[in-house]
Amino acid sequence: MLSPTERTTLGRAKDRARTDRADLYAVLDAGLVCHLGLVVDGAPMVVPTGYGRIGDTLFLHGSSGARSLRHAGSVCVTVTHLDGIVLARSAFNQSVNYRSAMIYGEVRRVSDPDEQVAGLRAISEQLAPGQWDAVRAPTRRELAATLVLALPLTEASVKIRQGPPIDDEEDYTLPVWAGVLPRETVWGTPVPDPRMSQDIPVPAHVRDRVSG
Amino acid sequence: MLSPTERTTLGRAKDRARTDRADLYAVLDAGLVCHLGLVVDGAPMVVPTGYGRIGDTLFLHGSSGARSLRHAGSVCVTVTHLDGIVLARSAFNQSVNYRSAMIYGEVRRVSDPDEQVAGLRAISEQLAPGQWDAVRAPTRRELAATLVLALPLTEASVKIRQGPPIDDEEDYTLPVWAGVLPRETVWGTPVPDPRMSQDIPVPAHVRDRVSG
Repeated sequence: MLSPTERTTLGRAKDRARTDRADLYAVLDAGLVCHLGLVVDGAPMVVPTGYGRIGDTLFLHGSSGARSLRHAGSVCVTVTHLDGIVLARSAFNQSVNYRSAMIYGEVRRVSDPDEQVAGLRAISEQLAPGQWDAVRAPTRRELAATLVLALPLTEASVKIRQGPPIDDEEDYTLPVWAGVLPRETVWGTPVPDPRMSQDIPVPAHVRDRVSG
Repeated sequence: MLSPTERTTLGRAKDRARTDRADLYAVLDAGLVCHLGLVVDGAPMVVPTGYGRIGDTLFLHGSSGARSLRHAGSVCVTVTHLDGIVLARSAFNQSVNYRSAMIYGEVRRVSDPDEQVAGLRAISEQLAPGQWDAVRAPTRRELAATLVLALPLTEASVKIRQGPPIDDEEDYTLPVWAGVLPRETVWGTPVPDPRMSQDIPVPAHVRDRVSG
């Protein structure tokens, strides 16, 4: 279960709140990038970036020189899946179907080399499962140039909306088409790097993802 | 042109920066939801939400009672399109192809009724082009319950990465498949609301979007 705090307790649309930790994992594990919120010089900054999860820890990474991450402390990480446009009978009741997770907390800079590599591997696997073992591992110099941050999945909220529009009762008789326009994400055909000199087939971990 | 400020000037990956205002419009106009960054009680908060653009103004909306929007002042709005996973020959050079826009500024609460309706219409049209004219317009009470915020497109940055992986020169001879796995968003078949009592066909503005 996710233990509620004031800011993870939904003030509105309470029926969309999920408090099962499995829902949090599902939303995070289905994503590719998150939106990382930071406060820089008192102003908000929202950066799209990769992430990975190991148990109850979320890992983020960036260049050791990245201005935004040097400022990281208190953060909010949001992962959103837009699943459809909800076309209601009134403009007011138009909505979207979505799954989203928001995680609040203080990031910790990972200093242990093993944890750093595990975190980077998790981030890589989130974007491209199976890829880490297929490619050249990071060198010591590359690791030194990479900042890995850890965020505990302690304070989080999950919101999910699905299903048809909810119209005002008197609007149901309007002669307006209502329903959901689903939105899906699909993988296209892998595009080989023009600089690939040898005849290397698309590996199974990429091929299976496209067909699966 | 987008006039650079310190925080919109990229510290890294300068080659990904775009300074043409048309690029900003293109990234915004292709999106469905943004991630709105706020500072609430000194901590960052990132909320996924709809938006719309009219000229050089971005409109956002929410419930008049929404806790997060009551706190809105200085914001950062980020719109991200993930276009592909860039599979390099090393873990370090793994990347993603994307288009993103970040807008910084102070939001203004829209009080003029005409501007409020225009803003809501723009937000609706961004999610569902053609829908606004097909449905019941907002009532005075619904408008009173809706907060519309305006953000000038003054301080913004656009980043775009596309194309194959950029590997270290010595890695190009590795026997590793490298390339891009494209990611696309598609519309599914419209799902009629089970409560639609009449036989109402899917309207052209929805049908054309799916097929187009």
